Formats: sequence, C-alpha cells, structure tokens
Amino acid sequence: MLQRWLPILDWAPHYNREQLGGDLLAAVIVTLMLIPQSLAYAMLAGLPAQAGLYASMAPLVAYAVFGSSRTLAVGPTAVTSLLTAAAISQVAAEGTLAYWQAALVLALMSGLILVILGALRLGFLINFMSHPVISGFITASALLIIASQVKHLLGISASGATLPALLHDLASNLGHTNAFTVVIGFGALFFLLWTRRRLKPRLLAIGLSPRLADAIGKAAPVMAVIVTTVAVWVFDLGARGVAIVGVVPGGLPDFTLPPLDAALWQHLLVPALLISVVGFVESVSVGQTLAAKRRQRVDPNQELVALGGSNMAAAFSGGMPITGGFSRSVVNFDAGAQTPAAGVYTAVGIALATLLFTPALHYLPQATLAATIIVAVSSLIDLQTLRRTWHYSRFDFSVVLITLLATLGAGVEAGLIAGVATSIALYLFRSSRPHVAIIGQVPGTEHFRNVLRHEVNTSEHVLGVRIDESLYFANARFLEDCINEAVAKQPKLAHVVLNCTAINAIDASALESLETIAERLQEAGIRLHLSEVKGPVMDRLNSTHFLQQLTGEVFLTHYQAVQTLAPESLG
Amino acid sequence: MLQRWLPILDWAPHYNREQLGGDLLAAVIVTLMLIPQSLAYAMLAGLPAQAGLYASMAPLVAYAVFGSSRTLAVGPTAVTSLLTAAAISQVAAEGTLAYWQAALVLALMSGLILVILGALRLGFLINFMSHPVISGFITASALLIIASQVKHLLGISASGATLPALLHDLASNLGHTNAFTVVIGFGALFFLLWTRRRLKPRLLAIGLSPRLADAIGKAAPVMAVIVTTVAVWVFDLGARGVAIVGVVPGGLPDFTLPPLDAALWQHLLVPALLISVVGFVESVSVGQTLAAKRRQRVDPNQELVALGGSNMAAAFSGGMPITGGFSRSVVNFDAGAQTPAAGVYTAVGIALATLLFTPALHYLPQATLAATIIVAVSSLIDLQTLRRTWHYSRFDFSVVLITLLATLGAGVEAGLIAGVATSIALYLFRSSRPHVAIIGQVPGTEHFRNVLRHEVNTSEHVLGVRIDESLYFANARFLEDCINEAVAKQPKLAHVVLNCTAINAIDASALESLETIAERLQEAGIRLHLSEVKGPVMDRLNSTHFLQQLTGEVFLTHYQAVQTLAPESLG
Repeated sequence: MLQRWLPILDWAPHYNREQLGGDLLAAVIVTLMLIPQSLAYAMLAGLPAQAGLYASMAPLVAYAVFGSSRTLAVGPTAVTSLLTAAAISQVAAEGTLAYWQAALVLALMSGLILVILGALRLGFLINFMSHPVISGFITASALLIIASQVKHLLGISASGATLPALLHDLASNLGHTNAFTVVIGFGALFFLLWTRRRLKPRLLAIGLSPRLADAIGKAAPVMAVIVTTVAVWVFDLGARGVAIVGVVPGGLPDFTLPPLDAALWQHLLVPALLISVVGFVESVSVGQTLAAKRRQRVDPNQELVALGGSNMAAAFSGGMPITGGFSRSVVNFDAGAQTPAAGVYTAVGIALATLLFTPALHYLPQATLAATIIVAVSSLIDLQTLRRTWHYSRFDFSVVLITLLATLGAGVEAGLIAGVATSIALYLFRSSRPHVAIIGQVPGTEHFRNVLRHEVNTSEHVLGVRIDESLYFANARFLEDCINEAVAKQPKLAHVVLNCTAINAIDASALESLETIAERLQEAGIRLHLSEVKGPVMDRLNSTHFLQQLTGEVFLTHYQAVQTLAPESLG
Repeated sequence: MLQRWLPILDWAPHYNREQLGGDLLAAVIVTLMLIPQSLAYAMLAGLPAQAGLYASMAPLVAYAVFGSSRTLAVGPTAVTSLLTAAAISQVAAEGTLAYWQAALVLALMSGLILVILGALRLGFLINFMSHPVISGFITASALLIIASQVKHLLGISASGATLPALLHDLASNLGHTNAFTVVIGFGALFFLLWTRRRLKPRLLAIGLSPRLADAIGKAAPVMAVIVTTVAVWVFDLGARGVAIVGVVPGGLPDFTLPPLDAALWQHLLVPALLISVVGFVESVSVGQTLAAKRRQRVDPNQELVALGGSNMAAAFSGGMPITGGFSRSVVNFDAGAQTPAAGVYTAVGIALATLLFTPALHYLPQATLAATIIVAVSSLIDLQTLRRTWHYSRFDFSVVLITLLATLGAGVEAGLIAGVATSIALYLFRSSRPHVAIIGQVPGTEHFRNVLRHEVNTSEHVLGVRIDESLYFANARFLEDCINEAVAKQPKLAHVVLNCTAINAIDASALESLETIAERLQEAGIRLHLSEVKGPVMDRLNSTHFLQQLTGEVFLTHYQAVQTLAPESLG
C-alpha cells in the first residue's frame, strides 16, 4: 500500500553502485542543459531568473520520491511557462512581487488539482484532450512563444496574449531595435541552429566518436551562454542597450508561502486546471515512451500524484509551475539514468550552480536566452499533422485547425477550451447519427441485410430495422425519427422488428425513446418487437417494465421473428 | 421545394367543409382555455396581461403557415414563461417598458436561433438534452413556478430565481398576508383541483355523457375566473388589498420593433438559446406524439423554422416567447382539430375576446391566475423518474438529480447547463473505459474468449487483446495503458495481436495511439498485429502509412494469427 504511493520504496532499497554511476553521469549532463533552460523559461514566464533555477531543485527531489517513471526529468517547460505567463499577467504586473506570488499560487493550485485527481484515480479525465487538440495547441503555443521572444532578439518591447496582438506590437516598436542585441540574438540563434543541424555530421566526419559528437552538440547552448556573456562583459554592451539578466541572488531558495487570497485563487482556477492537464499529458506521454523502451511501467494515476507533489514543492520553494519535459527526459535517458536518484543529483548540481555561479550570470544577455527558447520550441511546430488529419478525417482536421487558430487568435486558454469543446461536439455529432438500415431477408438464407445494398425479401406488414450503435441520449431521438418516417411510408404496416445485434448498451433516454416508439406504434395499431438482444442489454431491460408493456415479442433471431409474423414473405 | 418550407401548401388547397367543422369546434374550446392561461403565463413572466393575449394571436397564424404538425397549438407556456422571467429580470426591472422590450428581444432572438437551426438542418442539436436532463429540469421548473405563485395566493410580495431565495422571501413577508386574497386564491385552487380530480366521475355518475363531462371539466378555469372576478367587483375587494389585473388595453396589438441594443442582445444570448432548445424539445415531442396517433409525420427541422417564425411573430406584435404547449395541443387534438387552420380560428377568437372582453378582465384577481398556473404545472412534477432511473442506471439517476438540484438551487440556466454537461461527461466517461479482454483459444475450436471467464489456451509469446468499442480520443489512451500493463507482465512476449471485431471506427487520436503502441512495442522487441479488421476501418487505415509501418501483419481471423505466430499453443 505504502509502496503504491511511494514508488521510491521500489528502487531505493536495492540501489547499487552501477545505478549510481549511470545516474551521476546523467545528472551532470542534464544539469548543464538545465541551467540555461531554467533561466530561459523563467524569462518566458516573465519571472526573475532565479525562479527557474529554484523550480529545478525541490520539484526534482519530490518527483524522485513520488514518481513512477525511472527517467522522467521535471522542471519548467516551454508550454507551462507560456501558460503561466498568460494566466498571471492577467492578475498582476510583470516585475512585481505580486506577479511572482501569483506564479506560486498557480503552482500550488495546479499541484493540489493533480494530487486530487490522482488520489481519486481520475487520470482518465485527460482523455478529454484528444490528439488533434494537443497537436493544434502545441504548434500554436510554439508559434506564440517564438513570436513572444522575437522582441528579445531585437531589443525592443512587445506584449500580447495572441499572435495578432504580438505581431502588431512588434511592428510598431520596430524602430527602437538595438543593433548590438540583434547581433548577439541572431548570432546565438544561428549558432544554435547550426550546431543542431550541421555540427554533429561534421564532427563525425573528422573522426570523433558519435557519443562525443553528441555531447558536444548538447553543450552548444552552454557555449552560447558563455561566449555571449563574456562578450557583453568585455565590451560593456549592457551600457549600450543590450538587456541582461542582471543580479541573480546566490544561495538556496527560502521557504515561500503562496498567498491565500480567495479572489486570486478563483481567478487562477481555470488556468491552473489547464496547466495541470496540459502538463500531465506532456509528462505522461514522455514517461510512457521512455518506460516502454526498457519494458517498465508508468502508472498514470501515480504520475498525477508525483507531478502534483513536485508542483507543490515548487510553490513552497520560490519556483514556478513545472512538468515533465520532453527534451530533458530524453537526454537523461540517453545519458544512462537508471533511477529517479538522477533527478536528486541534478537538483544538487543546480543548487551548486546557484551557490557558485550566479554572479557570472549577471552579464548573460536576454537575447541569448530568447535564442535558446526559439530553437527549443521550433521542434514542437508540427504542420504535418494538419496534412495527415486532412487526409484521414475531416472531423479530426477541423479540430486541429480550430484549436490552432483559436489559440493563436484568442490565446492559450480560449484555444484549449475551443479545441476540447469542438472534439467532444463532433464526436457526439458522429455518434448521434448512427448507421440505420431497413433490413430484409437474403433469399434462401436466414440472413437479413440492408434493403438498399442487397436484393432482399421484405413484407409490407413487417418492417425490420437495424441500428449499428449503442442507444444513448444523443441518438435516441434519431431512432424515433427514423421509425416515424419509415412507418409513415408504409400504410399497411402491422409490425416493427428492431434488430439489436449492434446495441451494446441502452441508457435511460434511449429506453424512454423505445417506450415512446412502442406507444406511438401502438396508437397507430402497430406492434413493436425486438430481435437478437444481447445478454447484458436484456438483463437491464428485464429490470424495467418495458418488456411487460411491449406489445410485441422478443425473438432470439430475426429470422424467427419474420417466420412468426410474415412467413409468406420469406423466400 | 416551396412545399418543404411552407407546409400550408400541403393542406390548404384541399381544405374542405368537414375539416372546417372540426377546426372551428376545436378553436372555440381552445380559445376558452387559452384566455385565462395567456393572462396567467404573462403574469408568471412578470409581463402585463395583454402580452399573453398578443402572444396567442400572430404566432398561431405564423405556425399555421410554417408548421408541419396538424394539431400543435402554440403560445406562452409555463416553462418558457419561467425562463423568460429568469432571463429578463436580470436586465430590467419588472413593470418597466424596458422589461417588456427585453421579452420582445428574447422572442426575436429565440426565433432567429430556431430559424437558423432549422435552415441549417441542425435539429439534431437538441439531442444534447437527454431525457434525464429534461425530466429533472421540468420537475424543478414546476416546483419553482409553484413557489413563485404562492405569493399571489397570499397577497404578499416575494422574488428570487432559486427555491431557497423564494422560500426565504416568502417566509419573511408572511406577516403581510391578505385574508381576502387567501380566500380567493385557495378557494380557486381547491375548486380547480377538485374539478380536475373529482368532478368528472360525479358528472358521469349522474348520467352525463363522457364528452359533456369532459367539456365541463375543461371549462372550470373559465368558471373560476368569472366567479372570482364578479366577487371582487361586487365586494370591491380591490380596495381591500386584493391584487387585480387592472386595465387591460382593448384592441389588437400594434406592430412592435424589439430594440436593437447590442449589449442587451449579448446578455440575452444564452437565455435565448436555452428557451429555443427547451421550447423546441417540449413542442416537438408533443407534436410527434399527436402526429403518431393519426400516422402523420412531423419534420423536426421544419418545426424549428415554424417555431422560429412564430416567435418572431410574437416579437413583432407585442407578445412574449412562445412554444408548442402540451395541454392546449392535446385539447385541440381531442376536440377534433384537423388542420393548423384551427390555430388561425383560435387566434381570431382571442382577438375577438381582446376587442370585446378586456374591460371585464379589470377585476380579475391575480390569485385566481396563480391558482390556474399552480394546477396546470403540478402535473409536470414527476418524481417517479427519480425512482425509475435509480433502478435502471446510477449514471442516469445522477443526471436527473444534479439537474433537479442545480435548477432549484442555482436557477434555470445553471440547472440546464449543469445537466447537459453532466450527461455528456458521464457518457464520455463510460465510453472512455470500454471492456477490454485478454483472449485465448477455446480448446478444440477456432473461437477466442476472455481468459478471465473461460478455460482457454494462451501462449507466453503471443498476447491476444480484444477491445469492445470503437476507438476514439476518450478511450485511446486507455488502450495504451492496457497494453502497456499487459506487456509489462509478460517478459517473454514477442507478439501482440489486437482483435478488432468490435471496432466500428478509429479516429485520428486512436490512430496515433495505435502508432504509439506499435512504436513502443517495437522498441521492446515486440511486434503488433491486427486481426478481424472490419472493411470500412481497413479502408481508412489503408489511406494512412500505419499499415506499412506496422511491424506485424493484418490477419483475417484471430485463429490464423495464432496459427502463424504460436501454433504450439493451440489445442
């Protein structure tokens, strides 16, 4: 029982030297990767640089205790930072204490929501996020993030929660562009893109081992940070208008208590819910993909608890909302992490860096961080899915497109909500108009088929109707309409036989519709029969008065029904 | 084409003397019934008495032109009046011109919404209202209406949109009760209840024909109106604190133009949508029930257009939102109405009454109208459904209960929205956890069954999985989890065969889940196969790269799959 809630008990007692080696190496590499990323995502969220560093310490320790994935690496990510910025900029002004406190409240609420969902085993709720919604949302988020970072590359100011607003702001401030910033920003951007796309093949060509080539490629962001920081320091570019990170307080985070302000909590409820769900979806899919490679398992409900605990740890240690990140988890996995202890070592690494190197971060230009972000999120843009879903299903395509456009045009919250609502509405729409067939006997057999597709025998006294879907509220009235219509066309009708082969369930609405159909038919002098009703459906019908009030019979097979009611029509 | 949009062209050209006779008789009876009802429902909506009369003229003519039901009688009803009061009391104060104008805007918007839904053939949208939602909502509405009318029986004032608020207001004003009003109100109430429950059997017992007994029963509200009006006039009870209808302007309604105020329209959008949907559901179910008795048909999409047109007619003639009413339509049908011309004659009857008898309505006590309303809506209270759905399905029961309680406790709009959201969420919840079985061979046969229920042969190298539902976004991840879990349990596994007998459709989310499953399995060295894929699903899969990238094969039958992959396991 305790083991279920504390997966650390699974691995810690058997922790061995070999695992320690793998975990330590992975921790060093992930730490190097996380330092610039943490600073960058804090900037993306509009928070002070240290918020990103703090969010990469305590949450990693919490995840090591509660997490069911062996290799997931948590911390601030691009999408959660974007959602954070969108939410808290509505309740406080960037740069104020209230702004950071709102981020802490958001992390705490999101943590509580995740823990509650996990404790109640409600992990299935994330199923409401269909793949088309996630795909459209992630692409739109990446585009929004890139648009929001362009200002740092140009050294101008711009704000806005939607793409049109951002582009408009950028365009109107273009005149204030700072040349030094542009050189640093685009320099770093092209350097990072070049190392990502071209460096590794060249290193391999000159004879380096693939592993070393890979490690050098991974170190590129750190190199960009060092080079541009030194450049700013040497040439005193801060005085020439290049925006820099500035003072980052050294030392470990203090204990922070997010303010218990009811109005603020109410404002942040929906954003906290969205961050929870989006973060969880991102995290659990990475976790499952990595676990599958080593035939391990990730328990979605335990992951809710673990991510919730990690977010609460972030809230109480001056951090910001976090989740399991894709790239850092893959790096952690590839570098040989064996257990969540690697996360603890990474946290120690970040803590050491915070203690020792924060003075060095003073001259780090924001443009470099912006370039890091842009390169990181550019891989999230996935326009392929639009093409693929267009070919596969127009319904799914329209969900991707609506989510994408709504997110870009009306912001992240509106986009997600529009996407989820559209996918649910379209699903209900589809299942509300199931395939219904009037059936007749295939001559010489006991089979009954659609009269529109086959040459079959029918009777003007007996109408056979087959519905290819479970009956529930969204299609119950549809069946009424179908039968009304069919009956109005056949003046000599005396019997309707509903073939129930494809009906797996009947809900209360559908039951009432069946009663209504039976009653209306009775008043028109027509009897309603059922055929081939499945066992569980029959059990449920037996618990009601429907079968007693049914004017007709329940036949085991449709053939028996027609044999009894209109033997002359069989051939 | 023209005939589709103007059902009047179906019957008017063949109109004959026999139909005229039936229609005229029905019109006289319905007119007598509608005069007190129209006044009462106007009062329920907080509108001047004439609004109810006006809403029973032009809309009836409009319905006669556009309606596809032969016997539906439209006009203000209890539920639409309650919804109207709830909506417009939020934007204007009762008794002001703005209040009435808001009712006209509501009628116009509701009319436009209905016409648009009808023109776009979107009638299926009402399927989102499940029977449990409607049942809970109607019962709660009836209770709210009764609570709102008690003040008129006592001669005190009370207001509130929820049951607790109404009861609290009633309790605190109880000291101002007017004794004369109580006598009239409860007198009328008991008289009406007595005539409804006891009069008919007694009349039959003394030898009256059933038809005459019925007609006398129907005339009871008119008798109550006449008796109490005369009493107030004779004893000058108006001066003793009995609230009366007062001046009702005689004559036909003027043309009214609802104000085109953008803010007002925005405020009333959601209420207009709800009135449209609720009114349409009520109307179309009455219409279909009556049509079925004579083997006629009602076209739901045409009904949307007809009700929309009728509401617009109400908006332009000083009325209020209307719909097809249950009791008046049944009376119309029973009295022998043959065509919608009966509605036109009823409109003429109401017009004559408005021209001639409005001075006589001056002394009509509001308590009598309240008694009429209470008796009319008391038959809508249906607590049976709670008991029935409890036995049939806890899911459906909880939808009824939530709708009922939310409507009583938080108002009509909140109640409807909560009910619809709950029923959709529960449906998705149910279909998000379909039945999944690990299957094995029934020895000596080609059948494969659930390992938990049958003694079957399985192989430690091959896992057979059957999912009993179409695959879509809400259950896609569930399948991933199931397969992950099953795979983690079998270390020697080399093949997973997904049995697709029950899968009628696969959406883009589920396709991606299948791809993810295939990839994860591949990385664990396991091949994914499919068996018994249905034709249409296969067609769709063939349009993607999934089958080419599939590491395994697609088998026609599950038996062939196991024969190929693990023949040694068969027995």
